[in-house]
Amino acid sequence: MPLSKLSVWEGSVDLYNIELEEALGIILKSSNPIKKVEEVNLMQTLGRVIAEDFYAPMDNPPFDRSPLDGFAIRAEDSFYASDENPLSFEVIDTVYAGMPSSKNIGSFQAIRIMTGGKMPSGSNTVIRIEDCEVSHDRVVIKDRLKTYQNYCFQGEDIKKGKLLINKGTKLSAIDLGVLGSMGQKTVKVIGKPQIGILVTGDEIIDYSSELIDGKIYDTNGIMLGSRLKELGLEYKMIKPREDNVKAIAQGILDNIDDLDLIITTGGVSVGDRDLMDDVVKEINAKQLFWRLNFKPGSPAMYSVINDKGILSLSGNPFAALATFELMARPLIANISGDSTIKTKRVRGKILKDFNKKSPNRRFIRGIYQEGEIDLPEGGHSSGMLLSMRNCNALIDIEAGNTGIKKGEEVEIILL
Amino acid sequence: MPLSKLSVWEGSVDLYNIELEEALGIILKSSNPIKKVEEVNLMQTLGRVIAEDFYAPMDNPPFDRSPLDGFAIRAEDSFYASDENPLSFEVIDTVYAGMPSSKNIGSFQAIRIMTGGKMPSGSNTVIRIEDCEVSHDRVVIKDRLKTYQNYCFQGEDIKKGKLLINKGTKLSAIDLGVLGSMGQKTVKVIGKPQIGILVTGDEIIDYSSELIDGKIYDTNGIMLGSRLKELGLEYKMIKPREDNVKAIAQGILDNIDDLDLIITTGGVSVGDRDLMDDVVKEINAKQLFWRLNFKPGSPAMYSVINDKGILSLSGNPFAALATFELMARPLIANISGDSTIKTKRVRGKILKDFNKKSPNRRFIRGIYQEGEIDLPEGGHSSGMLLSMRNCNALIDIEAGNTGIKKGEEVEIILL
Repeated sequence: MPLSKLSVWEGSVDLYNIELEEALGIILKSSNPIKKVEEVNLMQTLGRVIAEDFYAPMDNPPFDRSPLDGFAIRAEDSFYASDENPLSFEVIDTVYAGMPSSKNIGSFQAIRIMTGGKMPSGSNTVIRIEDCEVSHDRVVIKDRLKTYQNYCFQGEDIKKGKLLINKGTKLSAIDLGVLGSMGQKTVKVIGKPQIGILVTGDEIIDYSSELIDGKIYDTNGIMLGSRLKELGLEYKMIKPREDNVKAIAQGILDNIDDLDLIITTGGVSVGDRDLMDDVVKEINAKQLFWRLNFKPGSPAMYSVINDKGILSLSGNPFAALATFELMARPLIANISGDSTIKTKRVRGKILKDFNKKSPNRRFIRGIYQEGEIDLPEGGHSSGMLLSMRNCNALIDIEAGNTGIKKGEEVEIILL
Repeated sequence: MPLSKLSVWEGSVDLYNIELEEALGIILKSSNPIKKVEEVNLMQTLGRVIAEDFYAPMDNPPFDRSPLDGFAIRAEDSFYASDENPLSFEVIDTVYAGMPSSKNIGSFQAIRIMTGGKMPSGSNTVIRIEDCEVSHDRVVIKDRLKTYQNYCFQGEDIKKGKLLINKGTKLSAIDLGVLGSMGQKTVKVIGKPQIGILVTGDEIIDYSSELIDGKIYDTNGIMLGSRLKELGLEYKMIKPREDNVKAIAQGILDNIDDLDLIITTGGVSVGDRDLMDDVVKEINAKQLFWRLNFKPGSPAMYSVINDKGILSLSGNPFAALATFELMARPLIANISGDSTIKTKRVRGKILKDFNKKSPNRRFIRGIYQEGEIDLPEGGHSSGMLLSMRNCNALIDIEAGNTGIKKGEEVEIILL
């Protein structure tokens, strides 16, 4: 989206301390679904978003076939068969599945046929093997069969031209099976979102290094990168040479052309070393909002440069994770066209008292199962990531809430 | 498991037409959890099963640090501070996060400190910057601070030696974040299950080929392979040179040493070309059961050779998928130690009438959401894979059921 289109927010919206829903509105309005379409080998399309409606290119089954093991005959030859009037047919060939017969069935001729075998020319029914008396090259029939009894028609499962998979579907294993059964060799899919992660903070060092006095190991880069992988996405780690405004700005500028979105962590508070505000100004990105009316992660910031979003999250790991779930997932769903990346809201009964007051709106972690939500050991009190380990949900608690009693219904975001 | 241990089933169990639960009991008893442990780089461990309890190798934070931006001082120096008695401190240094000071704080000295910065030697509290009057190299304090007020202790979040992640956990993004924050460079994980897929059937050709008269494209290989990928697993496609007993047997023997499990499709009925029974005999595998008391997929067979399972499923794609979910998933969960691969049973209200009689137990497809289950368009009637596309559940209908009314509770297996 050209920057000029964003002018509606200038002045008319207070960019500071906005509500989550307003932030999401801004994020979604300013982000662009990927238009690039790639044609890739069928076997590489699992989890990709199909770019076009897929219509069956052929009938399935691709020929008339037998649903059972028996003898293909002309039904009219059996019309006078009965226990009192057994009729004998000449067996002129055998059809296995995948090995059709070139012979034509004439009057009182039969071809032995297996399940899935192509119906021989001239035949219009199959008598099951259990109902026949078979000798060397003859078969005796005592039943009257109807025309097209025990007979599968070409296209019975899927008719050529039928809409099978809608544009925008994230392709599943079953979809790949369906596409494969149609002999589809390649599939047109939406380009994968290219997402960069940039961790700021002088105190942060990489897990692969030795710890230095006063430093801590990175959590956010590993966690958010792995979270993207869990969602079926890829990412690129952006590593500025130094932790200062110019180097971080350069890191963004060097990568932004190849990326659809950059997620940063840290540097969004207001201390001396909180650099993101300066970084955004340094690269002339348009800062659409800064600070949100909820916890955790309220210092988050969102900026746009060359139509690409820069979502800047708090450096606190739990806050970074929570705001990733609340904001990055809807954003990436929009960019990728993959609606399964969105989080889902449900309501459910809380299984424990939550006795804290919430002067501001806040999201606390929970463990959701079948309409009920539990709070983890250690509760919500700590900003620690560790207590998020077994959680699969956030509870959305409105500002002014004075406490929640066990059994009350709460608003839940499933992660 | 040595073949001799299987002798309990010989003669004492009817191997034919058994119940699902009996089949699962046999499968689980005869399959072996992988014992191999690999030490892999942290960044390669997402979704892997950790082989050992993980205890914190260090404190987090690894040093005492400041929770806010302000001035580190000796609390005792502030004990007589008040609005009437402002006290002046000499600012002797600045500590940024990641950049500790080498200086020691003496009486009425202060060090400016940022959030996350290491507490300087001699200090035991931080006064927040908003509460100070700052001039060039001095800071004036009017508040009395307590010892260790505004002070984060080393190990406050995680104490060295604490059990953080239990053995057998499938590692999530959060787990990787936690391991990374502990500077863990490699992690011991259980070896990945090696699973082979072998599609039988003369009539089946690969999606990448041109269609030949009487043949159909493979669905099962692509679908089951992709399903394994969806579950975070890898697979190897076994392609026998020809579709006959000797070639299929050879295909199994050539690969079984490198695999933990082989899943085959097709050839389990009783026609001339249903080869799996002969294949199993050819390779001297022990056939633990054949045919199940439910639909779809009742012809399934399970055999064991050299402690490795061969799970042989029907060639019908929907039947293959259903029995994969019902039997292969619990089996792979057992082999891999990854309990998340198991399917889950719940109960829920059915949203449509299901008017068919079920003389035998059967599993029909459904769309489950929040305690309710819908039946897909086109219902259960067809064995077609296509109508499974949007389904996420199977409904378990007991033998003798005469129909289910809308609103009744049913037994559901979530896929």
